[in-house]
Formats: sequence, C-alpha cells, structure tokens
Amino acid sequence: MKIYPVIMCGGSGTRLWPVSTSRTPKQFVNLVSDTSLFRQTVARLAPGGDGLDLAAPIIISNARYLDLIDAQLKADNISPLAILLEPCARNTAAVAAVAAEFVGRIDPKGLVLLLPSDHFIGNPGAFRKAIAEAAAIAAAGRIVTFGISPDRPETGFGYIKAGEQIGPSAFAVSSFREKPNHVTALSYLADENYSWNAGIFLFPADLMRAELETHAPDVLRGVKDALDRAQADGTVHHIDETAFSAVRSISIDYAIMEHTSNAAVCGPLSCAWSDVGTWPAVGDLQTSSGQLEPVLIDTENCTIHSEQGVLVAALGVEDLVIAVHDGAVLVMSKARAQDVSLVIEALKARGLTQAL
Amino acid sequence: MKIYPVIMCGGSGTRLWPVSTSRTPKQFVNLVSDTSLFRQTVARLAPGGDGLDLAAPIIISNARYLDLIDAQLKADNISPLAILLEPCARNTAAVAAVAAEFVGRIDPKGLVLLLPSDHFIGNPGAFRKAIAEAAAIAAAGRIVTFGISPDRPETGFGYIKAGEQIGPSAFAVSSFREKPNHVTALSYLADENYSWNAGIFLFPADLMRAELETHAPDVLRGVKDALDRAQADGTVHHIDETAFSAVRSISIDYAIMEHTSNAAVCGPLSCAWSDVGTWPAVGDLQTSSGQLEPVLIDTENCTIHSEQGVLVAALGVEDLVIAVHDGAVLVMSKARAQDVSLVIEALKARGLTQAL
Repeated sequence: MKIYPVIMCGGSGTRLWPVSTSRTPKQFVNLVSDTSLFRQTVARLAPGGDGLDLAAPIIISNARYLDLIDAQLKADNISPLAILLEPCARNTAAVAAVAAEFVGRIDPKGLVLLLPSDHFIGNPGAFRKAIAEAAAIAAAGRIVTFGISPDRPETGFGYIKAGEQIGPSAFAVSSFREKPNHVTALSYLADENYSWNAGIFLFPADLMRAELETHAPDVLRGVKDALDRAQADGTVHHIDETAFSAVRSISIDYAIMEHTSNAAVCGPLSCAWSDVGTWPAVGDLQTSSGQLEPVLIDTENCTIHSEQGVLVAALGVEDLVIAVHDGAVLVMSKARAQDVSLVIEALKARGLTQAL
Repeated sequence: MKIYPVIMCGGSGTRLWPVSTSRTPKQFVNLVSDTSLFRQTVARLAPGGDGLDLAAPIIISNARYLDLIDAQLKADNISPLAILLEPCARNTAAVAAVAAEFVGRIDPKGLVLLLPSDHFIGNPGAFRKAIAEAAAIAAAGRIVTFGISPDRPETGFGYIKAGEQIGPSAFAVSSFREKPNHVTALSYLADENYSWNAGIFLFPADLMRAELETHAPDVLRGVKDALDRAQADGTVHHIDETAFSAVRSISIDYAIMEHTSNAAVCGPLSCAWSDVGTWPAVGDLQTSSGQLEPVLIDTENCTIHSEQGVLVAALGVEDLVIAVHDGAVLVMSKARAQDVSLVIEALKARGLTQAL
C-alpha cells in the first residue's frame, strides 16, 4: 500500500530567533548541519531499498514560503507530487483534512504520513523501520501516532499513554495527555507506558475522512470546499482563501485523536529524535553548519550559532546561547531558552518587525 | 607663550577588540559618542575665548593612519599645523623628541602639549583651566605632568607622588611609580599625595631638547637626523625610516621623567577623565554612538556596543560585554576585560589576522 508523505512546513516559531524568522522559519535554515531540516525531512522519505512504498512528497505550507520550498527542492532534484499552499493557518485538523482529502481523491486506499518538517532524526533507518511497522497497523484501520521515549521530565510536549499491545512495537492508545506540569511529567517519566507525542501521524486517507465526518464534519466540509475552489498551477495548488479562512481552527488532537477509538501508538522510536525546539536543543545536535569555528577562552557549555563569515569569540562565560543572524545578535542564558518570546514582544512593541 | 598641541594617535590597542583593530584603532572609532575620541581630542584644543594661546594641532601618528586622520580632520574643518608620520613605533621618548625638535625649530620659546588621542575628558573646560595653570609652571622651566585623583586601586596605571607645592594646583614631583600591585595600589589610594599619571605632558620645547641632550642624547640625535631627512608633502612630513628605525625604543618616563629635576605635576584634574582602556570603561561613558538601542530583558550591568544597523538582544544575563563590529562578535565576562589579548592570540594562532 502506497504511503504519501505530507510534509508540513508552514509554521514559523520564534524560539530560535534571530535565525528563525517569519521570513525564513527554522525548517528552511541550516541549523544543525549544512542542510536544512526541511531538506533532511524530504531526503529521509526518498524511495530506498528497504521496501517502503513511498510516493513523491506532498508539501503543505503557507503561500509565502513557495519560493523557499521551490529552491530547496530544486537543490536536491526533488519533484514533489504536489505543493499545497494554505492562504492562512487553520491549525492541524484542517491540515490533516487537506492531506486526507487530497490523497483520498488520488488514491482512496493510500496511506498518509503527515509529519512536521522541523524535527531532527539522527537515525533515519530506525525511523523508516518504524514507519514500515506502522504502515501495517494503519492499513488495518488505525490512525498511528509515534511515541518518543522521554529522557527528561519535559513539560513542553504532549504525552501518549499506551494501552493494549497490537504489534511488536505498537499499542492501542489509552489516552493523550496535554503538556503536563513538572510533577506530572516526573510521574510520566517513571512510567514506561508514557511516551512523548512526536506529532507524526500515519493513517489511511479514507479512515481520516471518515473520522472527520464523525467528529469534525464542519472542518472536513470546509476543507473540501477550499480544495474544490483551489487554483492549480502545475503541481502547485493555491487553496481557496475565502473557503479555507472560514474553517474552524482546532488541533488534530482535540478534533480527532481524543475522540477516535482507532488511535494507535508505535514506538517508542529509537531514532535520535529532537524537535529542535530551543537553542540549547540546537547546541546538543550541532555538527557543522558551515560557520567559522568560534574562539572560546575559558568558556563552558555555550551554544553558538553564527552566519557565514561571522566570527564569534567568547571569553570567561558559561551556559549561554549566542546566536548571530542577519543583523541581529542574541545573547541569552540557556536557562531562559523558553523565553525568547519576551524579546519578540519587545521588538514588536518597538515596531522592529523587520527583524522578526 | 604659544602652546603647540601635539596629538599622538599612532597606537593600536587590542583590549577593545573587535571594535579597535590595527586597521581602525580605538581613537578613530565612535566609541562613547557619535564622534571619535581623536576628533574630541582635537576639538578640545581648538582656540577658545578663555585666553589659552593654542596653535593649530600637530598630529603625530603612524603612516598607515594618514587617510583616517585626513578624513576626520576634514570632517571638522580642521587645518593641522603639521602631520608627522612615523614609519615605525619607537616609544614615547622618540615621540617627545620629535615633538620638541619640530616645535623648537619653529618657535624655540614655544610650549609643547603632548597628549594621547584616545582618552575621554568629560569636562573640557576644567581641562583647559588646568592647562592654563600648567603653562605658567612650564614656562618657568618645568616639564609638567597631569595627575588624576584615583577612585579605585587601579593596577593598570603609573602613579605620580607629589612633593613641594609650587602653584595653586601644582607640585614638584617627588617620584614616579610604575604600575603597582594591588596592595601598593590600595596604599596609594589612601595617600592624597598620589595621583594617576594621565600621560599628558606640557613643556618648553627647548627644555625638553636640553633634558634629552643630558639624559638620552642618542635619542635626540637620532630623531634630529630622522627629521632632517624627512620628506615633506605640504603639511605632511614622512619621517625618515632608516634614521628613525635606528632610534632607541624607550619611554619618556624611563628616559627623562625619572631623571630630570624639573618635573612637576598639576592636579589632580577634576575633568572626568578616563583612558577608555577596557570595555567596562566604555560602558561607564557610553551615551549614544548611533547604535540601535539594544533589547534587554532581565539583563543587568552589561556593556553593549554594536555597529550601525545591528540589533543586540540580551535575555537573562549579567556583567557581560557584548561587542559587535565588522563581522566579529565578542561576548565576555566583564571580570575578564583585561584578557582580550587571549582572544587576539587565538586569532593569530589560527591565522585570522584580517580580524585584528
């Protein structure tokens, strides 16, 4: 059964400012190596000799990133099956509906692999093995999620509690848990039934359409309408703005996953996964991104990212993030890595939106 | 009696890297305001309504800074009396000899005010009043130095011990003291007879020639020879390289001041003086240098210098220096401000001399 990778790359986070901006979000930047997370995500899903029946990628993004997407796909000689452009963001239920509806119209029996483009996976082979097992589970009528084994009491992720075992590394989902507080996160860490929700989904297109019909029929109807009115230009589909902007904004978790009786979880994945969500996380992964090696004197445990040709020197400092990009320099205590939004707010308040 | 300001601007320190480099040393950079320390020094010595009989400035520097000097003088419509270019550095005794000999040939009765171009003086009026009193003392046959009242046990400066009072704010020099250790500096701080040596000298040209003849005749002879062979191009004098490079390299303090019986000290100056010697010292003075105001969130006691158009954001940090200039970023603990040379050495070891 064919798997259609649908790669989501329309978001623009701020926690990796000044490198990640709304003009050039994190997924398109060479953050942890000399290629972008988006390009790595696409490369990870190329046809291989391992029996995975993968279609060419479907890219779903915001219209403003078309040039970036085009350029990065061309750099790797990738011909996408389609590029679906949202005129505005309407959360992940709408994205899942677009993916299910678009694939369902091409191949009703097709499987959709819906995944973010801004995560890092250190062991793509292990990831593809997990996809292969998950595909068999999904084909039997499941929406499969992927669990990551927690290595710390992270309060920034959702968690999945595994229930009945349904495959070698697959379980029915007992429940989804939202971002916990610290004490709850500690209890999850101690219980092997809990894993982090990686935000990756694998499902039969028709099953997702049916689940949407049951649990969020308005979202499905709105998305169908927006796709019906889409303007196609070769492989690029401009989703209709009027119809799409009227779609309810709700996450796939709230709209479907917490209601369906067909959720499964595969894992925990041992593929060296990271959401690359904060600067310290970047530092943990950084190999080389073509930057000039910094000069570090009596300096410990710092994450340093600079752009081409910029030299960073640090003397007598520790536990800092130093990030240089496009006329902006951020110097931050690592402990405050979740608070970059405070800088963003200050910039907005000063009208310096060109830096964002 | 005419006072000939001789402004020394040939040095290039490294403690203010990356802003101060050998290409553009500290004195030519807009560090603490929207003009350079060199331009401020020249402006401070312009003819005024206070009776000081000041000649146009004589600039003494290294040949490689001629373009910078020209441009900065032109920006303020200053016509120098002369620009004397050293082909190489031969320390301050040679500089004093050049100044005394050059002025002595024009006006043997003239007074030479020999001073650095890279210091900050917050109260130019008080400075000029001190020069006026010092001129009377110098004219009576003294080499006058200027003392600064210490406000901390600084170990980076030389000290002057005042002896017999010879004017309202003038004293014979009891002794010069080299950079002290911390305990000695504490004892100097407690004794009002000690002041910092500001490195400014006022003397009759002929007296300095006579003192050199007595205490360092080889230096005077070499400098006379180098001036005799100088190539003049309008007001610009290229001091002869062969002759000048043969001059002994020794400081004015060792060569003359510690031996002469005619040393005096005026002061202590209350003119808000700073040698702008380290990044924290820059921070203490900084008003505006045209830079974008940094975004500071939960950030205390940091000195931030960025170039035009560069935005610095700091989050959750304290006691840091953050300096951005021409493709280089320095992040340093303020406590390590004297150790910038370690960064310079590392850059040299890596062959990154274009950054220096």
